[in-house]
Amino acid sequence: VGGFVQKGLVIVFTGNGKGKTTAALGMALRAAGHGMRVLILQFIKGSWRYGELDALARFPEIEIRPLGTGFTWKKESLDEDRVLAEQGWAGAAGAIQRGEVDMIVLDELNIVLAYGLLPLAPVLQVLSARPPGLHVVITGRGAPQGLLDAADLVTEMQAVKHPYHDQGIAAQKGVEF
Amino acid sequence: VGGFVQKGLVIVFTGNGKGKTTAALGMALRAAGHGMRVLILQFIKGSWRYGELDALARFPEIEIRPLGTGFTWKKESLDEDRVLAEQGWAGAAGAIQRGEVDMIVLDELNIVLAYGLLPLAPVLQVLSARPPGLHVVITGRGAPQGLLDAADLVTEMQAVKHPYHDQGIAAQKGVEF
Repeated sequence: VGGFVQKGLVIVFTGNGKGKTTAALGMALRAAGHGMRVLILQFIKGSWRYGELDALARFPEIEIRPLGTGFTWKKESLDEDRVLAEQGWAGAAGAIQRGEVDMIVLDELNIVLAYGLLPLAPVLQVLSARPPGLHVVITGRGAPQGLLDAADLVTEMQAVKHPYHDQGIAAQKGVEF
Repeated sequence: VGGFVQKGLVIVFTGNGKGKTTAALGMALRAAGHGMRVLILQFIKGSWRYGELDALARFPEIEIRPLGTGFTWKKESLDEDRVLAEQGWAGAAGAIQRGEVDMIVLDELNIVLAYGLLPLAPVLQVLSARPPGLHVVITGRGAPQGLLDAADLVTEMQAVKHPYHDQGIAAQKGVEF
């Protein structure tokens, strides 16, 4: 369209600092502000809380869907976690392939990959074969190098200072949740 | 309130990567989702675009106010830029001191400080004397060390990869603006 390249981007927010899910939330709301449709898939239960969910509820363009992956994160239940991850990814892959929306947020997918609960190869394959205009935003610490290589845009959020660890201050409403 | 420390935090998003203003936007919307009142003060014109402004327009809890600092960023107009910065800061300081809202976002203040258009000392003084429950979120690359020291939470967004620089891809609607 007049020299304007309409290319869906793969965007990764990773690192140990705060702001990864918050940046994805901001990106979803910005897209919705343009009238774009956004699907947010949560790979880990409970990472989105009331303030965020209440904000999202005001946007009919945005659907948020838990993938039901209540991981145990216990060594003895590793097989169970892998099954949950595979099921969650199957849902995400289907949504990416259908391409019914303009942006898909795969919230906390990185950590699932980092723990080896999901192999990287099929994820990269689905991303690479996605509908051309679809933006995919992937959050979570520990994004594997192969995903960084495949991404168009990567920001690492580095925790320079964090009050909840450093100073024993309780999590604050409107900031932490 | 039952062991829950209600302390307003000073939060800094800095670094060269994408996601600083987006994280602040997400934080504002999350706070608004809790019914908290948010004031966004823009130190640099034009850093918030249509998608974001349209999203914000759905939140009566959020007010966004340009401080009118159309900096010239030219060496020969340094004095003019300093006057604009001082005027902008006077407005921000007043808003912080009045404490009529629960969260104030000082968008791109860091860059104004980094360019030396505003001295750091009065900024730190106003932050330190703010109403105790007020959260202040400060964005922009180049946050000075003194501000990092005074902040409760600092995240540095590091650009690991950026398509607009690296690959000559045009900025994308819903992602970049």
